[in-house]
Amino acid sequence: MTEVVALLDELQRIGKLVDGYLEPQLARRRPARLWEAAYHLPKAGGKRLRPFFTINVCKALGGREEDALPPAVAIELIQAFSLVHDDIIDRDSTRRGVPTVHKKWGVPTAIVAGDLLHIKAYDIVTKAALTNQRLARVLPNIIDEINRSTIEICEGQELDEELERKLQPTESEYFEMISKKTAALFEASTAVGAQAAESTSEAVESMREFGQALGIAFQIVDDILGVTADEKELGKPVGSDIREGKRTLLVIHTLTKGSCQERKSLLKALGNRKATARDSSTATKALISSGAVEYSRRKAREYTEKARTALLTLPESDYRTLLDNALTFVVKRTY
Amino acid sequence: MTEVVALLDELQRIGKLVDGYLEPQLARRRPARLWEAAYHLPKAGGKRLRPFFTINVCKALGGREEDALPPAVAIELIQAFSLVHDDIIDRDSTRRGVPTVHKKWGVPTAIVAGDLLHIKAYDIVTKAALTNQRLARVLPNIIDEINRSTIEICEGQELDEELERKLQPTESEYFEMISKKTAALFEASTAVGAQAAESTSEAVESMREFGQALGIAFQIVDDILGVTADEKELGKPVGSDIREGKRTLLVIHTLTKGSCQERKSLLKALGNRKATARDSSTATKALISSGAVEYSRRKAREYTEKARTALLTLPESDYRTLLDNALTFVVKRTY
Repeated sequence: MTEVVALLDELQRIGKLVDGYLEPQLARRRPARLWEAAYHLPKAGGKRLRPFFTINVCKALGGREEDALPPAVAIELIQAFSLVHDDIIDRDSTRRGVPTVHKKWGVPTAIVAGDLLHIKAYDIVTKAALTNQRLARVLPNIIDEINRSTIEICEGQELDEELERKLQPTESEYFEMISKKTAALFEASTAVGAQAAESTSEAVESMREFGQALGIAFQIVDDILGVTADEKELGKPVGSDIREGKRTLLVIHTLTKGSCQERKSLLKALGNRKATARDSSTATKALISSGAVEYSRRKAREYTEKARTALLTLPESDYRTLLDNALTFVVKRTY
Repeated sequence: MTEVVALLDELQRIGKLVDGYLEPQLARRRPARLWEAAYHLPKAGGKRLRPFFTINVCKALGGREEDALPPAVAIELIQAFSLVHDDIIDRDSTRRGVPTVHKKWGVPTAIVAGDLLHIKAYDIVTKAALTNQRLARVLPNIIDEINRSTIEICEGQELDEELERKLQPTESEYFEMISKKTAALFEASTAVGAQAAESTSEAVESMREFGQALGIAFQIVDDILGVTADEKELGKPVGSDIREGKRTLLVIHTLTKGSCQERKSLLKALGNRKATARDSSTATKALISSGAVEYSRRKAREYTEKARTALLTLPESDYRTLLDNALTFVVKRTY
């Protein structure tokens, strides 16, 4: 229990650090309409999980918080940029409980606002490196991690769309997709923390493994919550994953291992934006009765253990304990 | 005449250099559909003016071509990325004589393909800096130039849309807009050339002034060609600038200085996608009779001279002569 309190305190502290860093970068700039649109999502909060991992990995490897903060903020902006563009693509109208950028300012401004967040991610680390010698030394490595993950996010976005067009999506296609679309940025968040601490390439590699496995576990839990959480917890209507046709692990498991009736119930609502509440509810029940929720929980635990093994290559410290607790939190969270 | 031949030879040589560098970066990657969409516009050619300026500024300042090439290619990719997103926003269906990316692959893939080109711009300079010590030293400065110009491109895009909504756009608003939307990347192309040569901050500043004035002259000439060139030269239908409602210098001059009849003829077709060929032609005639074409030519010459003054701060060399000829070419070009 005290561990949870300590973790939540740290997440809150990181949230304030990130907010304090972002505000002068994004607020009260001109043209006002564009910068407001760009600031909209970062201002709406979020768990700040990725900056938490960057900063605490850096400290667990003997690095300094002030060197980790600019890349941590950059990672958060990459996340925001990709969400703004994803929301246009997925035609989502709410995110973090507020209207999406394109819903409020229109698609043209949302495209450009996303681009701005993308540039500011690079701008923040680059500007910091111009006055911080230590960061200047590792700047090419940090930008390289950011580039690699962002390329994978783009590829993952395309793979996700391809998966939705496939009649028989396989589990391995699913894992390739989430490894890029979701886990790549967790991987960058932990690897960049190690880079900011000027760690050995072995330590960087271990932190990549940690972030990658953590990110996969995170996404599977997200898939599960789309079915089991309530609307307030989710910040979007229950069953919307199904109606939007998202190929979650639960959907893929039910399509490949479910009974004929379960598959039929699921397919009636899957990707059908006009599905009734009853259709959605029947489809949700099929995901449960097929054993997909249980199976996904098991998979999430597997990846959590993989992440933990990579994490435990770090020397013991309070920071490592915090990271370990965060890993547990990611899998046990209810929103 | 020999100067023109030498310049065209050099532009062709740079074009091949850039193509050779880009091909392995963008071709035959997976997911194939996404990378094909990203490669579509860079493969369609273009004048490669910006890489020409980066490379020749670097050499005119005593730098090496191999250090200038990666940032030159990065600038070309920034240009491609911004065009892909602009075409979505402006709903343009052809560019460089081929269908636009969103027309061929749809808006979602075009958004992500643009993002990929954006990342590859950073990736190319960063990867080069990992193995090139000289580039590693100036990497923060180069990325800083790219960030600054790309932020301005985004702001310019928004200002352009705001200008289209204004009833009385002023000339100073026009210059602020094109200074960001078009000239910022020319400025980056020349400044980055100076950075790659590890020049003094004075030389970098002069090259910024050169690129900025050159970019403004380039845009004004573009505005003029939208009215005076034929469809084949333009790569798009004549009069499309008017029907799309673009606030060119010619339009603003006619709206502020034209006769009542000229303003009326222009407003009938301006921003009216359903304007007849006759309406477009009458509007075009108003742009000419109002003296806007002449006025714009004079302005373009003014900025060319400003650019030339900045250019002539460089020591005399064959590279400087090439740059000077390119400046003349930009203003005299017919497409």
